[in-house]
Amino acid sequence: MKIAILGGTGPEGSGLGLRWAQAGHEVIIGSRLAEKGQQAAEELNTLLAGVAISGTDNLSATQAAEVVVLSVPYEAQAATLAGLADALAGKLLVTVVAPTSKPKARVWRLESGLSAAEEAQQQLGDAVRIVAAFQNIGAHNLKDPAVELDCDVLVCGDSKEDKQVAIGLCADANMRGVDAGALQNASVVEGLTSVLIGVNIRYKVSNAGIRITGI
Amino acid sequence: MKIAILGGTGPEGSGLGLRWAQAGHEVIIGSRLAEKGQQAAEELNTLLAGVAISGTDNLSATQAAEVVVLSVPYEAQAATLAGLADALAGKLLVTVVAPTSKPKARVWRLESGLSAAEEAQQQLGDAVRIVAAFQNIGAHNLKDPAVELDCDVLVCGDSKEDKQVAIGLCADANMRGVDAGALQNASVVEGLTSVLIGVNIRYKVSNAGIRITGI
Repeated sequence: MKIAILGGTGPEGSGLGLRWAQAGHEVIIGSRLAEKGQQAAEELNTLLAGVAISGTDNLSATQAAEVVVLSVPYEAQAATLAGLADALAGKLLVTVVAPTSKPKARVWRLESGLSAAEEAQQQLGDAVRIVAAFQNIGAHNLKDPAVELDCDVLVCGDSKEDKQVAIGLCADANMRGVDAGALQNASVVEGLTSVLIGVNIRYKVSNAGIRITGI
Repeated sequence: MKIAILGGTGPEGSGLGLRWAQAGHEVIIGSRLAEKGQQAAEELNTLLAGVAISGTDNLSATQAAEVVVLSVPYEAQAATLAGLADALAGKLLVTVVAPTSKPKARVWRLESGLSAAEEAQQQLGDAVRIVAAFQNIGAHNLKDPAVELDCDVLVCGDSKEDKQVAIGLCADANMRGVDAGALQNASVVEGLTSVLIGVNIRYKVSNAGIRITGI
């Protein structure tokens, strides 16, 4: 698949991009500025032999891709999506965004009462298919594709088929995706990120994650 | 410790009571009606040799206990607590309540915008110390104390010391408790219950749970 990663210059986006490129996907790193996207892509290409990740601006990346991954801080979400509604129409948007406030270990309730994923859906309208995933994984070790991360990925969305695509992307990144229900449930998954940040702080670890047991 | 379990006639409350009694705690099953509490206690006593669980009404149970566990459906929470504020003052209330609506697999956002645990705190005032725990464990296998459940218990509260008491109660019930941060974070832990109910349905299992990895 052609996968654009908006905000792919950050540690999570670039780590996922590296893993997907190694799995055979065509990865395009998007950034606010085309040069920054190109630069991040070049850096990633030095890490892996035989894969060619490209980089450009967010709009061009979106237009070129079949699946678009949103990997920006929550504070940049609305502005990043503002110019992309047309380019995203009919495509699958996988949002990785998890709002964390200060203190980051305290669950942040957005003023809208919604999850960031639902806010994205409201902003973009129903022509864009949205799935929330990868909120709870640490960027730690992500850039070393050989490392199997000890965590599951909770996947929320209103379409079973779209969630299956995202669960496939989890497998391609060497993680297990678990169908966590409707897009509304993303509020819990996003909030778990704050819980896990707090666990990292209190237990003096760097990589707390979650696993679903019993399945 | 003397532990009262309000709503201890239900499967989760009675299962926890059985495990705590076996661990050496003095367990009092509370119910709306004293006879129902006594009846549930007698039934539990037939399951284990050498322990004597008692039963009574919720107010008497609260007055007699050092730690009080709230294990009622969310819909009964406010009414159950209504007459107990004085008896609970200065005591630790461990709430097990997780609001689930229909469909139960969809995270329920309470109208207050708060967690059920915070609503209890608002209702009871600051004289009652509240910790949220045991939201995500299934009642399945709980009544067989020899079975170690494959799940962790996320513990939320605003007092480290109170959370340590609850984490001790997790260990006494043969589970691992994890400090999950402030009471506000209970909204995520309560919501996870709906996510896990959905996982049970979609993956055709009966006992999905969560584990925290990396600690």
